[in-house]
Amino acid sequence: MSACHTCTSSICYSAHKSTNEMYERTKKMGITTIFDRWEAQQPQCGFGMQGVCCQLCSHGPCRITARAERAICGATADTIVARNLVRLAVHGAAAYSHHLEELAKTLKATAQGKTPFQIGDEQKLKEIASVLGLDTKRPTKELTIALADYVLAELRKDSQDPLALLEVFALTSRKEVWKKLGVIPGGVLSEIRDALTKSMTSIDTDPVDLLLTVVRLALATGYMGLVGTITVQDILLGTPSLVESQADLGIIDPETVNIVAHGHVPLMATAVIQAAEDPKLKELACQAGAKGIKVYGSMCTGQELMQRSATSAKGFAGQLSNWLPQEYYVATGAVDLVMMDMNCSIPGLKTVADHFHTKLVCVDRIVRMAGVEDHVDYVPEKVAEQARQLIKMAIEAYKERSHNVYIPPYKSKVVAGFGVETILKALGGSLDPLLDAIKKGAIRGIAAVVGCTNNRNGHDIKGLTIMREFLKNNVLVISAGCMSSAAEIEGLMDPTAIELCGDHLKTVCRMVGIPPVLNFGSCVDIGRIGVAVTAIASALGVDPSQLPVVASAPEYLEQKAVADGIFAVSFGLLTHIGPIPPVTGSELVTKILTQDIEQLQGGKVLVEEDPVKAVEAMVAHIDAKRKALGL
Amino acid sequence: MSACHTCTSSICYSAHKSTNEMYERTKKMGITTIFDRWEAQQPQCGFGMQGVCCQLCSHGPCRITARAERAICGATADTIVARNLVRLAVHGAAAYSHHLEELAKTLKATAQGKTPFQIGDEQKLKEIASVLGLDTKRPTKELTIALADYVLAELRKDSQDPLALLEVFALTSRKEVWKKLGVIPGGVLSEIRDALTKSMTSIDTDPVDLLLTVVRLALATGYMGLVGTITVQDILLGTPSLVESQADLGIIDPETVNIVAHGHVPLMATAVIQAAEDPKLKELACQAGAKGIKVYGSMCTGQELMQRSATSAKGFAGQLSNWLPQEYYVATGAVDLVMMDMNCSIPGLKTVADHFHTKLVCVDRIVRMAGVEDHVDYVPEKVAEQARQLIKMAIEAYKERSHNVYIPPYKSKVVAGFGVETILKALGGSLDPLLDAIKKGAIRGIAAVVGCTNNRNGHDIKGLTIMREFLKNNVLVISAGCMSSAAEIEGLMDPTAIELCGDHLKTVCRMVGIPPVLNFGSCVDIGRIGVAVTAIASALGVDPSQLPVVASAPEYLEQKAVADGIFAVSFGLLTHIGPIPPVTGSELVTKILTQDIEQLQGGKVLVEEDPVKAVEAMVAHIDAKRKALGL
Repeated sequence: MSACHTCTSSICYSAHKSTNEMYERTKKMGITTIFDRWEAQQPQCGFGMQGVCCQLCSHGPCRITARAERAICGATADTIVARNLVRLAVHGAAAYSHHLEELAKTLKATAQGKTPFQIGDEQKLKEIASVLGLDTKRPTKELTIALADYVLAELRKDSQDPLALLEVFALTSRKEVWKKLGVIPGGVLSEIRDALTKSMTSIDTDPVDLLLTVVRLALATGYMGLVGTITVQDILLGTPSLVESQADLGIIDPETVNIVAHGHVPLMATAVIQAAEDPKLKELACQAGAKGIKVYGSMCTGQELMQRSATSAKGFAGQLSNWLPQEYYVATGAVDLVMMDMNCSIPGLKTVADHFHTKLVCVDRIVRMAGVEDHVDYVPEKVAEQARQLIKMAIEAYKERSHNVYIPPYKSKVVAGFGVETILKALGGSLDPLLDAIKKGAIRGIAAVVGCTNNRNGHDIKGLTIMREFLKNNVLVISAGCMSSAAEIEGLMDPTAIELCGDHLKTVCRMVGIPPVLNFGSCVDIGRIGVAVTAIASALGVDPSQLPVVASAPEYLEQKAVADGIFAVSFGLLTHIGPIPPVTGSELVTKILTQDIEQLQGGKVLVEEDPVKAVEAMVAHIDAKRKALGL
Repeated sequence: MSACHTCTSSICYSAHKSTNEMYERTKKMGITTIFDRWEAQQPQCGFGMQGVCCQLCSHGPCRITARAERAICGATADTIVARNLVRLAVHGAAAYSHHLEELAKTLKATAQGKTPFQIGDEQKLKEIASVLGLDTKRPTKELTIALADYVLAELRKDSQDPLALLEVFALTSRKEVWKKLGVIPGGVLSEIRDALTKSMTSIDTDPVDLLLTVVRLALATGYMGLVGTITVQDILLGTPSLVESQADLGIIDPETVNIVAHGHVPLMATAVIQAAEDPKLKELACQAGAKGIKVYGSMCTGQELMQRSATSAKGFAGQLSNWLPQEYYVATGAVDLVMMDMNCSIPGLKTVADHFHTKLVCVDRIVRMAGVEDHVDYVPEKVAEQARQLIKMAIEAYKERSHNVYIPPYKSKVVAGFGVETILKALGGSLDPLLDAIKKGAIRGIAAVVGCTNNRNGHDIKGLTIMREFLKNNVLVISAGCMSSAAEIEGLMDPTAIELCGDHLKTVCRMVGIPPVLNFGSCVDIGRIGVAVTAIASALGVDPSQLPVVASAPEYLEQKAVADGIFAVSFGLLTHIGPIPPVTGSELVTKILTQDIEQLQGGKVLVEEDPVKAVEAMVAHIDAKRKALGL
């Protein structure tokens, strides 16, 4: 159990009362959940935590110790640590590219009239098509198909053929840095293959080259997996617009058929939300005794839906939680069906669902879970019918719901839908008011607090502390991913949260009418933050590394986050990463990532486990950047 | 130190006198090598060896123990073991696809007249182009370019689009099995991406689906990485023909400039062998005091060169060793330059080279080694000049050679160049004599003894024991990969080795004039074995799983071998794998691989650490298959 100063619950694993209460409930019911399994795994292997365990070949596992400073093949700790890092980042790059590919295929099928979706942002379609050199005079359908094909071709082209999206989206100053380092990536699938080949045993055993390989993967991820994905997603489902929503387990309606959209890819979920409006399905739910059908969000799929709940996801019922409490929404007993799209559906979901009536369904061809027989694998051309099928499955499950229901009585108001476009709109079409506020110091700087949630230091405890400390210090916070859910639940995305801000920031937020933590959406929306920071740098005529901007992934968990984190560093930002990544077994790798890389790319990794001290260091960095810019 | 009954050396880590002697030499010189590092790593982590350690997310490492039967996310031992297996196989699939891609690009550049290579097998070009549906009436150059583009497109196409090479090369009976299981792979890079995405945390946590993913990867590897690669390699460099060569460290000439081609991709090496004929370079070597320039082989690049030493690699000086003794050829003090192409150049090479004058050079863009500054990255269009550059570097290095040279006085005669084409030629154009010998029992069965070399049970000791036991039992042995080098060095590929055979096999080999262990070449030539077995099955009108054929990878080491091994199983063969793969932590995965999969695919994994017992089990399997066929 972690030390926690923000929560009054008797059980205090999490920053959120709802999670702590639900843990108490499962405990009483004799259900094992994540906090129990966490305790059972302690203590954990120090070799693995330092990154010095190699399990690649059948001579292994080898571990670097005082007694054995090399693996059997001769690999040093430096090689093993760097290679393991490549092996993590490459999973992330792969998963993001799957998301983008599904989107591109859906975009194409939509233009061909084969899906229930409509093109959501024609203006963005034309803008992107134009910068990519496509003929924008063609009819929208043709242009859409051409763009979808272009994206698919970019994914699949040679690794020696530079990525067009990086070329058009990145600032010249950044591209010069990357060219010099030789890390401009080519086709994403080829980059993935190259990285995997290199990180096999005894191919690339040079830790420096392996780290550069991580940078290539991170840039491929940044400009295709992140920026490419949000761009295509906006074109397809609409660019987010400002909207009010709600969060936390208290939003679950005990009287409706309740479906949870869980994962990262909002395609099936959007179709289900739209299908839930069908009077026939509503009638079916009523016949089953329910007062309606509601679709809630969990993790990043929820974030995507919330961002577009004024448009393509109208009717979205709100966000339940981020990664860690996924078992607990099932344990309310009031969730009838969980649609698991890619990624982050833990096997624990099934062990909890086994105690309730909740139906788990895999809705992506790559998602499978032991014991879960149901899968309705997303196919663009079939999604209209698949969505109806899922709703019917949920209604059937609803009929099996028992009286053992407990819904923690907590919910928060959330303002969502931020991004460059909404900010511009809020500011009357120009970034100038924002830039002026930064120049004058009313906004001291901007911190992107993003990424996963993690139990190593207590669920969301560190992330929320960091956000609050930034606000106190007049640093505007942008959030995306699971960290964004944490902020939603604790009310930091409600305009009333301006009370937590220092005086300067308070004044700005009050004047513009925004909360002090801006919800940029899901973890893929880290790309949206990248676009925003690029726009600010461009407007000021400087490189991103010169801005009073920092990034923090205070509770990173999975492999997409590894690629994201190195992308932020490569983008030129001081990037705080917690918990301590598995690199400390190599002095060389640790030194490169936390020191030397700054000379090469402008950004570096900050490792500081104390959240208050971490913010102090990041604010000092912001102040130094302000000073260098003469602000 | 392992127990060894085949060697009389005072030190007995290896089956080969040369290796043991060289180890003694390094020991005396105070140089640490692989056997020392092996000892320093003992004992090794039992969790890793059983496959139950998960190091994917930052909640980990998690280990499945009696006290903790699930990871923090809820993953079971079954999930973790199966996922780790995917993560190994995917490296292998990636590395093979890199090899094939380099070949396809080279084939194209060659047709365009941009390389020093010539099309080596026009007949094979036309045959393959024809079955793939290409217009074979075009001029050779155009057809070659079309085929190269076809292969590149196959690598890069969608994972939902079935592989054409599998369609044309696999027997209908096999394809039916794989269709039923839903494991027919599509584009290789997409398959790799899919597998990587699935094997990220909390995406595919179903051990059965993960194992099917390994099968998909293995089939993609089998029909593209193996069969595709040998096909394109034959077209480019020539299909192997029967040739006499030599092996073991004793072939090193102390008076010549000595270059070692080390790795798997024979492109740069072939160019160097051809360039070494240049009188100007020979003259340069003479001026440096050498009597000439020799190019030796190590590992699979050497095998490729040996197979073609009658044609494109004419002048090849012979094979030094397989994976394990790579440090020891450097330690002779008589090797001037090592060209490290992909893969299996261990960091230990550098620690030994530091004690000598030997220059290590990376010759593939994906190969890098800490401390090795020199790289001449293979580019098809530049390879003629790159080859000359490498020879000049070797001559310069030769000038630095000291008198501290020791070359163990052992060498063996090798007959090489086997494959379907050479067998057909030897048999007068028909497989019938071979089939008759099998039918009559003169050849009781065929065993493919392939794969890596491994120190876990003593270098090559187990593999050679297995080959000798097979011969005694009248089972013809086909070998490829590092196992093939082991057989070469111990004289099993010299026709005199028929003395080791049982009476029946002895008679057949003597009659046909072949050694009892047929050298099929490198590890990629496992594809050549697949083609041969397919031809036999086809001629007999049965499925490969019905044949009296088995496979053994008795000393598997790296990740390509994981993909190979599962390919052999999926191909329908009983496949002996040693050392015990890291799957024993999951009863389910172990049971599926060693039992249940036989019902599904016809093949299964045999785990038996005792080589004599392993052969007993395999011969029993052969006899059962004979009986079922009524032989």
